[in-house]
Amino acid sequence: MAFVNEDNITDLAQQRWNTARSPRLAELMTALVRHLHDFAREVRLTESEWAAAIEWLTATGQLSDDKRQEFILASDVLGLSMLVVQLNNRFSDKATPATVLGPFHIDDSPAAEFGDDMADGLPGTPLFITGTVTGTDGNPVPGAVLDVWQADAEGYYEAQLAEVDEARLRAKYRARDDGTYCVRTIAPRGYSIPMDGPVGDLIRNTGISHFRPAHVHFLLDEPGYATLITHLFQEGADYLDSDIVFGTKDALVVPFTEHEAGPTPDGGTIDRPYLHARFDFVLERLP
Amino acid sequence: MAFVNEDNITDLAQQRWNTARSPRLAELMTALVRHLHDFAREVRLTESEWAAAIEWLTATGQLSDDKRQEFILASDVLGLSMLVVQLNNRFSDKATPATVLGPFHIDDSPAAEFGDDMADGLPGTPLFITGTVTGTDGNPVPGAVLDVWQADAEGYYEAQLAEVDEARLRAKYRARDDGTYCVRTIAPRGYSIPMDGPVGDLIRNTGISHFRPAHVHFLLDEPGYATLITHLFQEGADYLDSDIVFGTKDALVVPFTEHEAGPTPDGGTIDRPYLHARFDFVLERLP
Ligand SMILES: [Fe+2]
Ligand SMILES: [Fe+2]
Repeated sequence: MAFVNEDNITDLAQQRWNTARSPRLAELMTALVRHLHDFAREVRLTESEWAAAIEWLTATGQLSDDKRQEFILASDVLGLSMLVVQLNNRFSDKATPATVLGPFHIDDSPAAEFGDDMADGLPGTPLFITGTVTGTDGNPVPGAVLDVWQADAEGYYEAQLAEVDEARLRAKYRARDDGTYCVRTIAPRGYSIPMDGPVGDLIRNTGISHFRPAHVHFLLDEPGYATLITHLFQEGADYLDSDIVFGTKDALVVPFTEHEAGPTPDGGTIDRPYLHARFDFVLERLP
Repeated sequence: MAFVNEDNITDLAQQRWNTARSPRLAELMTALVRHLHDFAREVRLTESEWAAAIEWLTATGQLSDDKRQEFILASDVLGLSMLVVQLNNRFSDKATPATVLGPFHIDDSPAAEFGDDMADGLPGTPLFITGTVTGTDGNPVPGAVLDVWQADAEGYYEAQLAEVDEARLRAKYRARDDGTYCVRTIAPRGYSIPMDGPVGDLIRNTGISHFRPAHVHFLLDEPGYATLITHLFQEGADYLDSDIVFGTKDALVVPFTEHEAGPTPDGGTIDRPYLHARFDFVLERLP
């Protein structure tokens, strides 16, 4: 190897990673070195800025644990998470688009049938979400499982609360044989990302809004179809056009229509006003 | 803000950081977003690679503490540290070139005079380093302080050892009125970077050598001159042409000449063979 200077160091640093045992690791690392060096050269990164970046990265790792992932949050606010979602989920126009998973999904939610109430007495405005699950071929997906999770009426997820005995605002609904489904819950509230860590410190030095618009998360993973991870957003909600994690998509914004007390979409009745959202999930058929 | 798609997300994510309260933060963050997205697009980063990167960054932060900085090590092996050194220390050709500080510098080393022995009885081959400190204007820098630190004959720094009572292989030497200096020590040994963390895990998946060639660190910070942080490398040492942190520079490689027992460069005598390196430090004169 030649000794380095400002002109040759990027080439030398790239070449070295070509010795990676897997061709993909070589591809990733040489590209990473090139883009990282291009960034440092373009902004002519100072030694104190470099030191501040080292400190910020360290604090971001140290704040993360089983319940909190500050690096995912960093990726989210830089638009990287949403870019990666799009690079890896290039569905046809007919399919429901994907959006970010987010940090609040919990595995193994309890099973729920058509019309079951996953809010289970929590305070809030009742919300019914109904529609169908079909493939891009137009066929219903009988028995499709909709893994649903959301924030409560104050904007908090189960994962953010200490000591929760039972699954809270999350369930795995099963579509009926004709592909129809019905989720019963309460209206979620938009929320702020956690602002007490290094990501919050950075955002506070900008005019960036730190909120997400009200939404409900869905995950559908059916054999023969591409896995769909997405949200439904409430039409007219605050922050729809400034979602800090860039997750909002036109096709995912749906009206939450107001209804008086009376008959409900699951065939029952309710003694209070409620909201009703309709959405048909269309899964990308795998070849 | 428009809703995102694969084509517009990079522009939207960049624009948002333009709201940073300082123009420099806006410049840094918009450039960072652009280069980060360019990288992800170019390699078409998969969701599992993204998740592995999040995990690697988290582990790297969590391993770091007061004594160990795994993110600096990561920056070093990617050639970023050395690039930043060069971007910020564009000295004239006459000046001694800078290289990386490294993670092992300790502040407030004890003062030492011409010929004092900073090895203080530690096992190893005696080494004298002598020369002058001048400016690029050719004038000596009387009383210049040379902050010196190095690994021992086994390749370990004081910062890597538990419980050290006194300063070990580090001292602040003072040049005489004519700019001459004389360091007495033992020959350092080349060493491996710490391989028991995420950086080591990555390097082990490649054919990259994880060693640094034998060297002694110097820091000179004199009023009227650019701060110089550099090393002297032993000519002929192992790993000179494969330094894992890219720190080696032609002008910093010096012969460690062998001498028989007898008179020494500080005007004394020694009863064993010793090594002698000569190097004249030339500091960039500030305008
Ligand atoms: Fe969410
Ligand atoms: Fe060193």
